Amino acid sequence: MNELILTTYDWVPETPRGYVRDLRARWALEEANLAYKVVSTPFKDRGASHYEHHPFGQIPWLTDGDLTIFESGAILLHIGERSDSLLPTDPHQRSQVIQWVFAALNSVEMPSVPWSIYQFMNDQEETPGRQGLNQFLEARLQHMDNVLDAREWLTEDFSIADILMSDVLRLVDRFDGLSDYAACRSYVARAVARPCFNKAYNDQLAHFAAAD
Amino acid sequence: MNELILTTYDWVPETPRGYVRDLRARWALEEANLAYKVVSTPFKDRGASHYEHHPFGQIPWLTDGDLTIFESGAILLHIGERSDSLLPTDPHQRSQVIQWVFAALNSVEMPSVPWSIYQFMNDQEETPGRQGLNQFLEARLQHMDNVLDAREWLTEDFSIADILMSDVLRLVDRFDGLSDYAACRSYVARAVARPCFNKAYNDQLAHFAAAD
Repeated sequence: MNELILTTYDWVPETPRGYVRDLRARWALEEANLAYKVVSTPFKDRGASHYEHHPFGQIPWLTDGDLTIFESGAILLHIGERSDSLLPTDPHQRSQVIQWVFAALNSVEMPSVPWSIYQFMNDQEETPGRQGLNQFLEARLQHMDNVLDAREWLTEDFSIADILMSDVLRLVDRFDGLSDYAACRSYVARAVARPCFNKAYNDQLAHFAAAD
Repeated sequence: MNELILTTYDWVPETPRGYVRDLRARWALEEANLAYKVVSTPFKDRGASHYEHHPFGQIPWLTDGDLTIFESGAILLHIGERSDSLLPTDPHQRSQVIQWVFAALNSVEMPSVPWSIYQFMNDQEETPGRQGLNQFLEARLQHMDNVLDAREWLTEDFSIADILMSDVLRLVDRFDGLSDYAACRSYVARAVARPCFNKAYNDQLAHFAAAD
């Protein structure tokens, strides 16, 4: 087995700390109990070699031998495939987890990140498009609340889908967007209470603080 | 092998026709040359059995024996795994395709669908958040233009990633959002020139027209 290498920025501004996407990979690696190291790429002056690893000039990417993988969803699928616990091998259970991975990233995060841009900018103007975006997010959160009201995790056992979905909802919660969705709030609280989340979160904060 | 069953709405309004997400699944099934049939679920009055198949009350879902799968990304991954051509078995090539699947759905569609909501509503107001959203989309399109300038498809051969990425970009193109991105436009043109796209597109239009 190759040692896994996770690349993140050397530094980021204060605001995104604790929410930078290397956290998803760190958390999954901790849950999977896989050996890994974290290396840095410059936040400022992103060069051609950065774009070779990540076509959008973002982070993280994961290196596994001569494989290099960008996109947090693809990285977590890869970690899941190397783990005994985060992605079941039974075809039914595996299919359940994979559809929830996409639900987190394509059905919930699709409205939540654009919504968070407005929150970051403290933009309160209720134009028709903005109302459409808010309704889009609220509908998805209401459906998630119905789903999460009846279960501890998205599938039988905690999986990569829960890492992604709870991290997506955590950003909404940061801006008090879960106040009407008690089951979503409880789910996020359960997820962030896991020791591996805490390890990943504190490691990310320490990584960026070391560069200040 | 089970016969695959794709469920879509019985009817949708005029505007989304040709862009409803069953198209991605139809297109992949045609490219993969897999036998399938299409069945309908009511667009109006979505009942409890709809939510059992799709927790967000959307479509499509794919039934394969006793497996039922929602999320277009998960459906295409499943079709890819049953196909000889749309998802390579070589681990390196497979990993490349999977990261581009997530790139389409989580890096490009995340800003493009919210942006399209503003276009649908003809909302032109340039608030700070709206400018943030526009810049988010433009940055992603510029990076995609750089990537696509040098290649025919995202990976060596046409794959499920191209179905998803070209369908994501096609919606941007519908609202003239690709006018500054010639390589993205050419890529969409190459994709929609494929006979299997045409079959899927015309089948979708005929399906909804039959219910008028």
